[in-house]
Amino acid sequence: MRILTLSDSDFAATFAAIENRGDEVPVGVEETVRSILDEVRKRGDAALSELTERFDRVRLDEVGIEVTAQEIERACAQVDAIAMADLELAAERIANYHRKQKQETWLSTDETDIMVGQMVRPLDRVGIYVPGGKAAYPSSVLMNAVPAKVAGVGEVIMTVPMPDGVANPHVLAAAKIAGVDRIFRIGGAQAVAALAYGTESVPRVDKITGPGNIYVATAKKLVFGQVDIDMIAGPSEILVINDGSGEAAHIAADLLSQAEHDELASAVLVTTSRMMAEAVAAEVERQLVQLSRQVIARQSIDNYGAIILARDLAEAAEFSNRIAPEHLELAVADPFGLLPLIRHAGAIFLGHHTPEAAGDYLAGPNHTLPTGGTARFFSPLSLDDFVKKSSIISFSKAGLERLGGAIERLATLEGLEAHAKSVSKRLEKS
Amino acid sequence: MRILTLSDSDFAATFAAIENRGDEVPVGVEETVRSILDEVRKRGDAALSELTERFDRVRLDEVGIEVTAQEIERACAQVDAIAMADLELAAERIANYHRKQKQETWLSTDETDIMVGQMVRPLDRVGIYVPGGKAAYPSSVLMNAVPAKVAGVGEVIMTVPMPDGVANPHVLAAAKIAGVDRIFRIGGAQAVAALAYGTESVPRVDKITGPGNIYVATAKKLVFGQVDIDMIAGPSEILVINDGSGEAAHIAADLLSQAEHDELASAVLVTTSRMMAEAVAAEVERQLVQLSRQVIARQSIDNYGAIILARDLAEAAEFSNRIAPEHLELAVADPFGLLPLIRHAGAIFLGHHTPEAAGDYLAGPNHTLPTGGTARFFSPLSLDDFVKKSSIISFSKAGLERLGGAIERLATLEGLEAHAKSVSKRLEKS
Repeated sequence: MRILTLSDSDFAATFAAIENRGDEVPVGVEETVRSILDEVRKRGDAALSELTERFDRVRLDEVGIEVTAQEIERACAQVDAIAMADLELAAERIANYHRKQKQETWLSTDETDIMVGQMVRPLDRVGIYVPGGKAAYPSSVLMNAVPAKVAGVGEVIMTVPMPDGVANPHVLAAAKIAGVDRIFRIGGAQAVAALAYGTESVPRVDKITGPGNIYVATAKKLVFGQVDIDMIAGPSEILVINDGSGEAAHIAADLLSQAEHDELASAVLVTTSRMMAEAVAAEVERQLVQLSRQVIARQSIDNYGAIILARDLAEAAEFSNRIAPEHLELAVADPFGLLPLIRHAGAIFLGHHTPEAAGDYLAGPNHTLPTGGTARFFSPLSLDDFVKKSSIISFSKAGLERLGGAIERLATLEGLEAHAKSVSKRLEKS
Repeated sequence: MRILTLSDSDFAATFAAIENRGDEVPVGVEETVRSILDEVRKRGDAALSELTERFDRVRLDEVGIEVTAQEIERACAQVDAIAMADLELAAERIANYHRKQKQETWLSTDETDIMVGQMVRPLDRVGIYVPGGKAAYPSSVLMNAVPAKVAGVGEVIMTVPMPDGVANPHVLAAAKIAGVDRIFRIGGAQAVAALAYGTESVPRVDKITGPGNIYVATAKKLVFGQVDIDMIAGPSEILVINDGSGEAAHIAADLLSQAEHDELASAVLVTTSRMMAEAVAAEVERQLVQLSRQVIARQSIDNYGAIILARDLAEAAEFSNRIAPEHLELAVADPFGLLPLIRHAGAIFLGHHTPEAAGDYLAGPNHTLPTGGTARFFSPLSLDDFVKKSSIISFSKAGLERLGGAIERLATLEGLEAHAKSVSKRLEKS
């Protein structure tokens, strides 16, 4: 792994390639997605059948678009008892964490003649997109469906493509554990379209969450507004801040756990110790060659990995804030001492005993996190994503008498006479 | 105003024209906006100067792109003392309401060996778009800037175009009252671009909020992801639910207060009383002809207004939930009794003494609300829009020993060997 120095004059230019790695959208994707969205919007199930046959080699008219209860039972029977218990443990811990994010409806009675408040309600229906094939992750099912259920969403719909008819039993088992209500055997932009517009078989949802490839991400972006979406996820990344304490082998393992995800993943260490920098670089080489996914990890490490030397932890934290990483490990002796310096990060892993993988599966917080610097303004997926709020305003006659004059004058100031009259007509009578 | 009946077989078809009124985006808008975004991204201030001269007939090299402290002082001096006091009252009430939405950072200590939590931090820098010319509303400045300031946003930047060099003194006074940090004399898609990408003069922000025309809305949609945005606002609407109680003149006034906004605004009454339906229809006619904005209001009422007869309040509430209106008035004898039936609405105004105009100016809740049925999944602008969250995860050695096995197995299940190893390498030693 290359070792850079934060204060070097050419550092910013060198690092730009890592930061901008997710910016390129292949030409033609948006056009293709638009035409798929259009097809499904206009022709519903018929379009879904054609597209699913074309992309997944599955005939929906033969196997049915909806996954049956028997199929789900059969899948659960294929999952061994230990895996089932692990998934249940993860679901429970995710539920416990997200329950703490719950916001209640409130009504303020500070004033006797005016009440204001905020009503919190779960969404009626949510669609969860789950990728198919090899990248079908049961943990993603839990991280999306469990919070939706904790929020009280009326109906949780899942879509998962089954290329060549092959279902991932762990994905279906996770759906069952999470309480997913209905599962449809579709994927790609066509699944996003079905969820956004509804078809004869697939009900229209209010929000679509879940990870997907560039076609899915583009489709989500295009239907945003018609429905809500979670966020636009780019390639994944980890930043580890280190002060020379801890074990190089652990830090190297954490960097590689990010790098194995995909070729565009980025794993970066910022350390104040040159000795640790060199030790981690050596460890990465040593561990990398033992990995089953070493081809992917190698590309990620070579292209988007770096070890960076910082003068002190304050400089490291400032760099981290500029990057706003998705995953941030504070692999330092006093992580809670460093925490107040961190302004932007999706999830923060504190201390030497907290590998990022803990957060991916069962620590409790969501693993759906803002990428590519968007932690400056986006938050992890949370219970908030599955509720919406309404403002409540209730004036008594006395309240309107007290504030009516100011309302009328402000409306008049803005040239909105009918606004003013809606108050004055009420005050006339009193 | 036309009177329809909810249970009529052709009701849905008739009403569709009202529901879909905001769907059409004029051709060419997106292309124009894309080229403006591109210009500003590439050429910064030079592009802003050219575009501002073209659209606003203002030479930025002569007057300066940033509004000076002296200009703001001069504007405040033009605003009379009563208006100043009204704006201050509104700002204070808006601040009080939004303070109640504040969420604190928390850390859970349910377990001795694992801590999880959520860190809440204000955004570093926010951009507020304020329209210029006649539609320059000081209330919009307050509704965007006050919550940003309450949230603790580091720097609040405002852009407001000044066509022909004319500034609206109330807008500048509202900005001063709200504590806006810097104001730039730009508007349109070029202002959105400047905020999203930054230029030599305008700093890049993390989020853009505030209303605007179709060019501004399109620009916001296109930069979404690069920065966060508030929401994509469509034409405004009100739904009034009535049970025959109250005064027809008040309901008519409220419908007209919506209709005067613009030709695409929609004002709809659902009542269980035919007598009230007819009385409101007559009142609307009587009041409409007295309005200064009667041409606009007439078009809105004729094209997108309706009075609808419902069998009972449950049917009316169900209809309202289907529409998910931006503004919902419960103009009934027992509004709090009806409230639990309401699932989707931007803001809910309870009882006969709560005209929607109260919420537009100073009740306290935000007047930036989800339109066009998006209250199914979007919420009013709130403090949440000006903060972002980071998850916190901290395992002790004992915690990792306790849960490490499950993490390893789940990672292995997903084929992510390096994830598993990041745990096993730590457990080896112990």
